[in-house]
Amino acid sequence: MLKFFYAAETCALASHIALEEAGADYEAVRLSFRSSDQRKPEYLAINPKGRVPALVTDEGVLTETPAILVYVAQRFPSARLAPLSNPFALGRVQALHSYLCSTVHVAHAHRFRGSRWADDPAAIEAMRRKVPASVGECFDLIEREMLEGPWVMGETYTICDPYLFTLAQWLEGDGVDTARLPKVLDHRRRMAEPPAVKKARALELSAG
Amino acid sequence: MLKFFYAAETCALASHIALEEAGADYEAVRLSFRSSDQRKPEYLAINPKGRVPALVTDEGVLTETPAILVYVAQRFPSARLAPLSNPFALGRVQALHSYLCSTVHVAHAHRFRGSRWADDPAAIEAMRRKVPASVGECFDLIEREMLEGPWVMGETYTICDPYLFTLAQWLEGDGVDTARLPKVLDHRRRMAEPPAVKKARALELSAG
Repeated sequence: MLKFFYAAETCALASHIALEEAGADYEAVRLSFRSSDQRKPEYLAINPKGRVPALVTDEGVLTETPAILVYVAQRFPSARLAPLSNPFALGRVQALHSYLCSTVHVAHAHRFRGSRWADDPAAIEAMRRKVPASVGECFDLIEREMLEGPWVMGETYTICDPYLFTLAQWLEGDGVDTARLPKVLDHRRRMAEPPAVKKARALELSAG
Repeated sequence: MLKFFYAAETCALASHIALEEAGADYEAVRLSFRSSDQRKPEYLAINPKGRVPALVTDEGVLTETPAILVYVAQRFPSARLAPLSNPFALGRVQALHSYLCSTVHVAHAHRFRGSRWADDPAAIEAMRRKVPASVGECFDLIEREMLEGPWVMGETYTICDPYLFTLAQWLEGDGVDTARLPKVLDHRRRMAEPPAVKKARALELSAG
């Protein structure tokens, strides 16, 4: 059986929703970042990066949201969560995933995780100040160029949808004026409805 | 025919090598970052993100290294560049790609691209100072946990190899003491040999 390690209010929500959408048989294990569970030896033995998500399979451990999302789509093909046999369509899915992990999530991370990239407290504060602009710029591009509607890739729901939804949770906290993002907001509202999403979110928000 | 947009000394080298390894029929178009080609309207019409690489296909444009690498592997299956039909093995390839794009490349980018995440010159300088430590930490983890040897995934060459090789080009410039990275250095030496790598690098280094 799959074992899924996550923490509340992290990008792990995307994989969590995908596992639910896929109807996967899995055990969810919640880490507390407040207790620094992700830095404890028993978790570092599973994921030496000390991050979430991590998915323990019979063959070994997988980490990183874009990897886990495609793995779930491929392991549970009947859920039809990605255009796996169409190289160009899968390439578009993957391009969005890469943009979300390497640009959007990274811009957001400068709000709370500045110490990854500088030691000076004033520099960390300067990073925090730029988050509304840098995250806002990313979402402007998503609104204009990447979100076809009603789902990210158009008429068909894919693994892109929970991933974008997850990062869009952070917009207000990042100080982005969402009034300029009607398509993103519409997508976020629509994504809040499916039972798989409700179940994954309820698990995340329940007592840890 | 495929059209591949790249710039010298960028992560586009990884996709360039993969296209060569795949024996793809493609036209390479070099952008000059010094002339800010990537910000010109004609390129923004191709890739609104203003970054490289971009691969123009008959079906549309693909961006982002992890997406292009898997696309090339899938479009040219006889080159056997990725374990496409094995979900777990592909997941490992993808996890490495995600780590390289969202953590390693991002740590490196704080050397020259700090203005993406802060406006204060002192903060940008503080970011630059931390690059040897942050990039070094990433490569320590790669050395210890991710590089099986002789190739990244073990006995079989995959699209992970040109991607790691590309980012390993930057180690000395990033101020990382490479003496502690014997496996990474060995991989970099081995990767410099294949004709596909030599051809892609020669193109990158030729007059733009």
